[in-house]
Amino acid sequence: MTIKLWDLAGAEDNRRFSPHCWRIKMALRHKGLDVDEIPWRFTEKDAIAASGQGAVPVIEDQGQTLYDSWTIANYLDEAYPDRPLLFSGEEGKALTYFLKHWIERTLHAPFFRLIVLDIEKHLHDKDRKYFRESREKRLGKTLEAFAGDCDAVLAALRGALDPLRPVLAESAFLAGRSPGFADYLLIAEFQWARAVSAVQLLETGDPIYAWRERVMDLFGGFARRAVGYPV
Amino acid sequence: MTIKLWDLAGAEDNRRFSPHCWRIKMALRHKGLDVDEIPWRFTEKDAIAASGQGAVPVIEDQGQTLYDSWTIANYLDEAYPDRPLLFSGEEGKALTYFLKHWIERTLHAPFFRLIVLDIEKHLHDKDRKYFRESREKRLGKTLEAFAGDCDAVLAALRGALDPLRPVLAESAFLAGRSPGFADYLLIAEFQWARAVSAVQLLETGDPIYAWRERVMDLFGGFARRAVGYPV
Repeated sequence: MTIKLWDLAGAEDNRRFSPHCWRIKMALRHKGLDVDEIPWRFTEKDAIAASGQGAVPVIEDQGQTLYDSWTIANYLDEAYPDRPLLFSGEEGKALTYFLKHWIERTLHAPFFRLIVLDIEKHLHDKDRKYFRESREKRLGKTLEAFAGDCDAVLAALRGALDPLRPVLAESAFLAGRSPGFADYLLIAEFQWARAVSAVQLLETGDPIYAWRERVMDLFGGFARRAVGYPV
Repeated sequence: MTIKLWDLAGAEDNRRFSPHCWRIKMALRHKGLDVDEIPWRFTEKDAIAASGQGAVPVIEDQGQTLYDSWTIANYLDEAYPDRPLLFSGEEGKALTYFLKHWIERTLHAPFFRLIVLDIEKHLHDKDRKYFRESREKRLGKTLEAFAGDCDAVLAALRGALDPLRPVLAESAFLAGRSPGFADYLLIAEFQWARAVSAVQLLETGDPIYAWRERVMDLFGGFARRAVGYPV
């Protein structure tokens, strides 16, 4: 049976930029599950009302509606234990959960500052007012003030990525010799940026650059073929 | 056969404060291996000359001399695969390596700033001059200037610990339901502080506080029984 995924889209149906959805799109390929990725906009709250909240990813599978990327990833391993696992064990899962919170607290803001104005440019017209008003309210400042100086934010992001470099210099993937949900948490941030922004986040000699190439090559180049800018 | 570990000591032979040695002392208990922990001072470079460098931990086992806590932990799982493993698999190992680099880049400096002057007070006389001169050269400032304002550094440390809290609110240990090398990397920082300083690093309601209690209870309260200040 095909899983339904509501996936944030921009002005074009096939420009998909939500990092939280990217986590799940990669996870679904990892599991080898069929999926129908339904384009969804911020203001289409009715379409995902069955989830009881207003944010994507939302999936519908076997009569259940689920939201939240961590909940969904855990569900996929539990519901499809015979498919390749997203977590190889409880140690891997607990440490991937740490990585998730580190990404959200340390990387998410500099990524968002670098691309927030590019996101706005690529939004569907019906989302534009909602996006600016809701984000400016949450941030307590204008999007322009939040974005700040691009060069300084890029330098801060490259510095924030630092603890990943020794790992990816030694290991093909964050999950070891083969990829796992840890890798999809991180590639999701880069796919978010690449969907809307031409900014070159990584230098070619960076071990994270080589890792990103490897992850974009997975599943027949699924992440690389997504609509976005060259990296 | 008993493994020899050269372990940094203060003025008293039994005040052991090196965080890098604590990683290995916990790991050796986890493996259930016998160990002779030899008190060592910074200026006793000759005693560990067989390792080809000048820092502890250094171990001698089965005719081999090894240094560096990550190398030693990997050696212990390889040399003693039938004993409880420090890493449950390659996913756990890669993500523990990320945790190690995150701790060293994010936590180590605020811990050191909080306790550097207390470390100096507890040093053996023969180490005092070496410690201050080598650290001030490396830091490019006096120890007092590096230490700075204790309240501000404590607040910064508590903030830096933030990505650990949701993990330890859900999971007994960083490695899942049972402890692993990930837990020993973190407890080592707290044991470093506790050996020399009375500063209360954590509030009792903090999930990290409850985790620290659990880790100090392991192996018959090995970490708790170490010479140091109450937490």
